[in-house]
Amino acid sequence: MNGKVYLVGAGPGDPELLTVKALRLLRTADAVLHDDLVTPEILKLIPPTAQIQNVGKRCGKKTMRQEEINFLMVTLAASGLQVVRLKSGDPLIFGRAGEEIEALRRSGTEYEIVPGVTSALGAAAAAGIPLTHREISSTLVLAAGHRASESSVEDWSQFASNSTLVIYMPGQDYAGTAGRLVAAGFAYETPCAVISRATTAAQQTYRTTIAALHLAPGLPAPTLLVVGEVVRFADTESVWLGGSGEAANLLESPQEWGAGLTQRVFLPGESRLEEEPLA
Amino acid sequence: MNGKVYLVGAGPGDPELLTVKALRLLRTADAVLHDDLVTPEILKLIPPTAQIQNVGKRCGKKTMRQEEINFLMVTLAASGLQVVRLKSGDPLIFGRAGEEIEALRRSGTEYEIVPGVTSALGAAAAAGIPLTHREISSTLVLAAGHRASESSVEDWSQFASNSTLVIYMPGQDYAGTAGRLVAAGFAYETPCAVISRATTAAQQTYRTTIAALHLAPGLPAPTLLVVGEVVRFADTESVWLGGSGEAANLLESPQEWGAGLTQRVFLPGESRLEEEPLA
Repeated sequence: MNGKVYLVGAGPGDPELLTVKALRLLRTADAVLHDDLVTPEILKLIPPTAQIQNVGKRCGKKTMRQEEINFLMVTLAASGLQVVRLKSGDPLIFGRAGEEIEALRRSGTEYEIVPGVTSALGAAAAAGIPLTHREISSTLVLAAGHRASESSVEDWSQFASNSTLVIYMPGQDYAGTAGRLVAAGFAYETPCAVISRATTAAQQTYRTTIAALHLAPGLPAPTLLVVGEVVRFADTESVWLGGSGEAANLLESPQEWGAGLTQRVFLPGESRLEEEPLA
Repeated sequence: MNGKVYLVGAGPGDPELLTVKALRLLRTADAVLHDDLVTPEILKLIPPTAQIQNVGKRCGKKTMRQEEINFLMVTLAASGLQVVRLKSGDPLIFGRAGEEIEALRRSGTEYEIVPGVTSALGAAAAAGIPLTHREISSTLVLAAGHRASESSVEDWSQFASNSTLVIYMPGQDYAGTAGRLVAAGFAYETPCAVISRATTAAQQTYRTTIAALHLAPGLPAPTLLVVGEVVRFADTESVWLGGSGEAANLLESPQEWGAGLTQRVFLPGESRLEEEPLA
């Protein structure tokens, strides 16, 4: 029997946000090659009989080159195995799937792509942010904070009006990001939200404006930055409001937020600030 | 017991592309209010004990006003029911969820948002198109063909470079759409693909360029238009290639494609045109 490679989206983190198909494929896989960001709760669903390998690359800690991943996929499938290449979110968004698909085609390996819930959608659902809105946002732009080529800086000026911008992996340099957004034409008062570990038990949402973004604490990766008027609609009961900078000042050492915080942050005293944002 | 409303994404069409959570909620729902585009295969999963109502609006055939949908959700939940508001794709993208969330909050109704695989991701997976690519597309733009306000025309000029543009519900006026894309700065030779009924048994993909887009046949709704260099990567074995206009000329009456075609279109003679697009 010939093997096959499935490029599968693992969704944003919550195992219940796997698709039915992804769950079926994980449960019957012979081998699973997964990214670093796939959550432990999802990896637990893989049967013990399957080979499991973390082929992820994160923060410069290169564990495996892209060519090696391609070679591994092709070789495992050629030996007759059902291989799941598991990527967080959706496999076709910021996942270098294009290169993996090319390698599979060139080698004549049978493959199939199984889409997933991309992280922006998981984060928006958890924070109660409609990504498009009939009156204020007619387009959704998904962009990457870390570019493949670090030398080229993304031009965000094209996205400043009437759209929602979601930046994947924005990094911790919020002051720099805010500066780039303003240089690109975004208004200082544009609402934005940093969403950390969306859809997991450790999810946190910090809501602020571009003007005060530099005061945002360094939340644990992976994070997403949502920029646009629709952020005003965020669910105020599960969101930590910044904006005036007071929330950040409550912390003696904002850096501590980067380590091991495992609960949503509620600041009830502040939650009434914009309870009915469009009333 | 208090009721609750779940705003749930049904995914692009294939029932296996429901999330595990969406499937669980459908199976235990007391009432399901669904859009027109949710596929019959998904509706079959709802237990016969549940109330099911199509509250969809399509092509001007208004079956229910937004205010009526809001009222129904709130009233059913207030009577203690578990209500699933089921939307095709993801609930927060082009689904008017913002207005429904506002209504739920104002009435104090408990609610939860369950994200789904948005149609663009399902279509791209089925057609083998990586929506971002390290070398040629660093952003993904999701836009709506039909605007809430028909009088305002979307300005696409901001999206012409280094990004992939996916237009939801592009309509059948392909000549008009091509004209707008060119006026917005897209090159005539930019590849594009019309994907009809993505991830269902009736899926079809027609690949062409902006220059020849006006020759595209009218495929059955719902359709998506994917525009950008990444379309060159589309899987040539499952895709019908236009571009030179020959494919369209094979049909005596392109309009016939709009009615009841239920299979993928394979034109093997043409599939070698761009077999190794980046070789």
